Amino acid sequence: MNDSTRRQFLKISAAGAVAAPALLGLAQATDAPPAPAAGPAANPAAAHDVTHTLARYIVNARYENLPDSVRKEGTRTLLNWVGVAIGGSRHETIECAVTALAPFSGPPQAALLGRLERFDIMNAAFINGVSSHIFDYDDTHLKTIIHPAGPVVSAILALSEYHPVSGQDFLNALVLGIETSCRIGNAVYPNHYDVGWHITGTAGVFGAAAATGKILGLNEQQMVWALGLAASQPVGLRESFGSMNKSFNPGRAASNGLFAALLAARNFTSSEGMIEAKRGWAHTISTKQDFREITDGLGQRYEMALNTYKPFACGIVIHPAIDAAIQLRNQYHLTAEDIESVHLRVNPLVIELTGKQTPQVGLQGKFSVYHSVAVALIDGAAGEKQYSDRAVNDPKIIALRDRVSTTVDPAILPEQVDMTITLKDGRKLHKFIAHAIGSLEVPMTDQQLEAKFSDLAEGILAPAQTQQLMSDCWQVAQLSDASLIAQTAVPH
Amino acid sequence: MNDSTRRQFLKISAAGAVAAPALLGLAQATDAPPAPAAGPAANPAAAHDVTHTLARYIVNARYENLPDSVRKEGTRTLLNWVGVAIGGSRHETIECAVTALAPFSGPPQAALLGRLERFDIMNAAFINGVSSHIFDYDDTHLKTIIHPAGPVVSAILALSEYHPVSGQDFLNALVLGIETSCRIGNAVYPNHYDVGWHITGTAGVFGAAAATGKILGLNEQQMVWALGLAASQPVGLRESFGSMNKSFNPGRAASNGLFAALLAARNFTSSEGMIEAKRGWAHTISTKQDFREITDGLGQRYEMALNTYKPFACGIVIHPAIDAAIQLRNQYHLTAEDIESVHLRVNPLVIELTGKQTPQVGLQGKFSVYHSVAVALIDGAAGEKQYSDRAVNDPKIIALRDRVSTTVDPAILPEQVDMTITLKDGRKLHKFIAHAIGSLEVPMTDQQLEAKFSDLAEGILAPAQTQQLMSDCWQVAQLSDASLIAQTAVPH
Repeated sequence: MNDSTRRQFLKISAAGAVAAPALLGLAQATDAPPAPAAGPAANPAAAHDVTHTLARYIVNARYENLPDSVRKEGTRTLLNWVGVAIGGSRHETIECAVTALAPFSGPPQAALLGRLERFDIMNAAFINGVSSHIFDYDDTHLKTIIHPAGPVVSAILALSEYHPVSGQDFLNALVLGIETSCRIGNAVYPNHYDVGWHITGTAGVFGAAAATGKILGLNEQQMVWALGLAASQPVGLRESFGSMNKSFNPGRAASNGLFAALLAARNFTSSEGMIEAKRGWAHTISTKQDFREITDGLGQRYEMALNTYKPFACGIVIHPAIDAAIQLRNQYHLTAEDIESVHLRVNPLVIELTGKQTPQVGLQGKFSVYHSVAVALIDGAAGEKQYSDRAVNDPKIIALRDRVSTTVDPAILPEQVDMTITLKDGRKLHKFIAHAIGSLEVPMTDQQLEAKFSDLAEGILAPAQTQQLMSDCWQVAQLSDASLIAQTAVPH
Repeated sequence: MNDSTRRQFLKISAAGAVAAPALLGLAQATDAPPAPAAGPAANPAAAHDVTHTLARYIVNARYENLPDSVRKEGTRTLLNWVGVAIGGSRHETIECAVTALAPFSGPPQAALLGRLERFDIMNAAFINGVSSHIFDYDDTHLKTIIHPAGPVVSAILALSEYHPVSGQDFLNALVLGIETSCRIGNAVYPNHYDVGWHITGTAGVFGAAAATGKILGLNEQQMVWALGLAASQPVGLRESFGSMNKSFNPGRAASNGLFAALLAARNFTSSEGMIEAKRGWAHTISTKQDFREITDGLGQRYEMALNTYKPFACGIVIHPAIDAAIQLRNQYHLTAEDIESVHLRVNPLVIELTGKQTPQVGLQGKFSVYHSVAVALIDGAAGEKQYSDRAVNDPKIIALRDRVSTTVDPAILPEQVDMTITLKDGRKLHKFIAHAIGSLEVPMTDQQLEAKFSDLAEGILAPAQTQQLMSDCWQVAQLSDASLIAQTAVPH
């Protein structure tokens, strides 16, 4: 007996009863005796019956019981997500994916947002999930840095074109999916993220399974299996950031979650406690597990209500400076010609992360607080357009950018900025931002979300269609058939 | 600024340069500046350039350079895998999966082994991968307990029907895929397995990507991306063992790996060091990383040569007893009527894990050394048929089973057995097994692999077709078109 063979035998003993059936190489039959109970977890009381408790909640939760504030935030999440998915739809990343997958797609069941092709629902969910994350401009659950809509909305929007669902049931599923992702994320954050997982994809697959399983009408046992099959398919590593692989992750989480729910709906089984068991998801994938985050206050407190949206197409550390610039611009009707200089006192992080003074290409502009302030003053915006190659090389923008200076000051918090604009006429204008627009404290208004949406859809959808689509999103709870949204989100 | 928002800002600082672009919410563009180098790994020397080194090897490795012994073992792996995939093809697990996925499948590009349906290559790879693991009767790389063929052969067999490939190139891809899975598994085993990952699926996805990427003709950069997209899609938790979710794992690893390779072939990008980087696969998913296992001796030592096949459809701790029983039966032409009693001295593990004396259903028979010895003496075999509900309730088998007794003896190693059969005529027959058939020391013969194959295919393929299919497998390196195997593996 060589060492490795010996080890294999010995580990049967060490692994104990839980692992034994597998190491014995036993058949998997649905009439198999139930698996032995998992060993005690770090917190046995909190770890009890997590998957079943969550599944029971998802299966039983009704639209009628959602608080108005949650319905509203779910609707805002939908609108924001549809806009960013359309905005990303012509990117090279999507061209690659569509070309690669077209030969293998099933029937043309579901729309690719912003495009003319139609794919089967799983491939469509993937593509739309990728599209919505390309600009990193989607929604954020700040507690976990999960971008929750991507996996969930991609999956249910595709499914809505195959399996009819009312707008209310659609919105309910959206909320439940996001609750599921964010609560499971809460249970393992930050350790899980810190070690290297892209939590949007690893937690998001549960949300996609929950939301699509809800629309498919799974019973509690099937929902447990769907969550178990989702647990078996986590997606995404942080090392992929900076490549197309980053936006791959929410897309694949969407299609994996949908895949899990479709199998579970046909009684493809999983184990009973895949989230909480000793060899289950949370213990395998994280050194922290707080299962109360998943099971406490279900139907009472909503992570959905904590979702936020980015007003600007760049990292959040620059958002206070952009916010200040736009506010002063609008208040004083400033033009570039009025401005002698701009000075910012900022947290050291701002310069550390976004201190690039002379960006050469659009992407580098996102690393430049100088460029960002200049475009904010000139255009009153900082969307994708303001970070184009053209924008960073625009002489007018460069001229103003070169008149922006900074002082670092640790007393200024990262979410703050202290801006002083000196005008050519000698006046000094001052703005202190405590919380930038888009934060939980100062959420984007509905009008701001619409402006962002219109900006992203420009050149892809006709203006009237953009208006109609936004209206459909706002009115989702009144739709008798939620697939209207996907149908309106393609060029006509 | 609330605590969680603060934490998000602070973690930008803590996470440092690697995480910054993502936390900043930056666009993913292919012209993005290269990601900053990963921080120092536990073993910087060994961690250098792992993904590229492996990709370069896969891209350049040629069939002509494979040692004969490796070609031979690859061929045996193919034959064994095709047999088990056909054997599982009528199981309820497959019925569920086929029913669930049929509405979404693309064109009928690839066979479902043992069945009449044809699915697109990704769905076919999934179904065949599931089918091949249902009986836990597939191949085993004993160093890691990876079942390597499932993810790899499922994927390339499906692809062979879409992308023409010669038998030699097919076999080369099979070997490279299995090298990739097992070497990556070696790098993280046992810690990765011990914590709860089903290593067949987590390492297997790399093998599927490597093998299909090889057939697709990826260049080194594309292979790096394929491995990166594979790293982003690990599959499987040990908690799923005992449910259909266990065989789901190699199937999904197959389709995920193929998905990765197809995207990479269209220049869908990933990062450069997804296996070895600080926030990459090995550091995220395991507390142990030995990257030399991946890069040392490529093209010189072959994990492929260490693959083993199960002669009996039950856990390996019973295999020595079955082996002894069959050898004595055949040597002395024993029938049940000849036998007064059977006594075994066994390692304590055998009774701990398989001590069930009165199994009621077929699956329980796999937990019974008593039943296993009885069927081995009566049928000279211990395949799926010997573990049916009928078999465990057969009065003749029960009568012999009840005359089997055991003594535990820690001096007997788990891979050994000491068997004494007392005949009704008073003779005592004795057999000591040091290594059971199917171990690395006593591999199954080609004839035994054929017998196993025929047994599994019985009732699914006609006998002549089974013979033809086995012949095609043995002759794979002579095939001008490897898809002949998939085409022959369905009922005609």
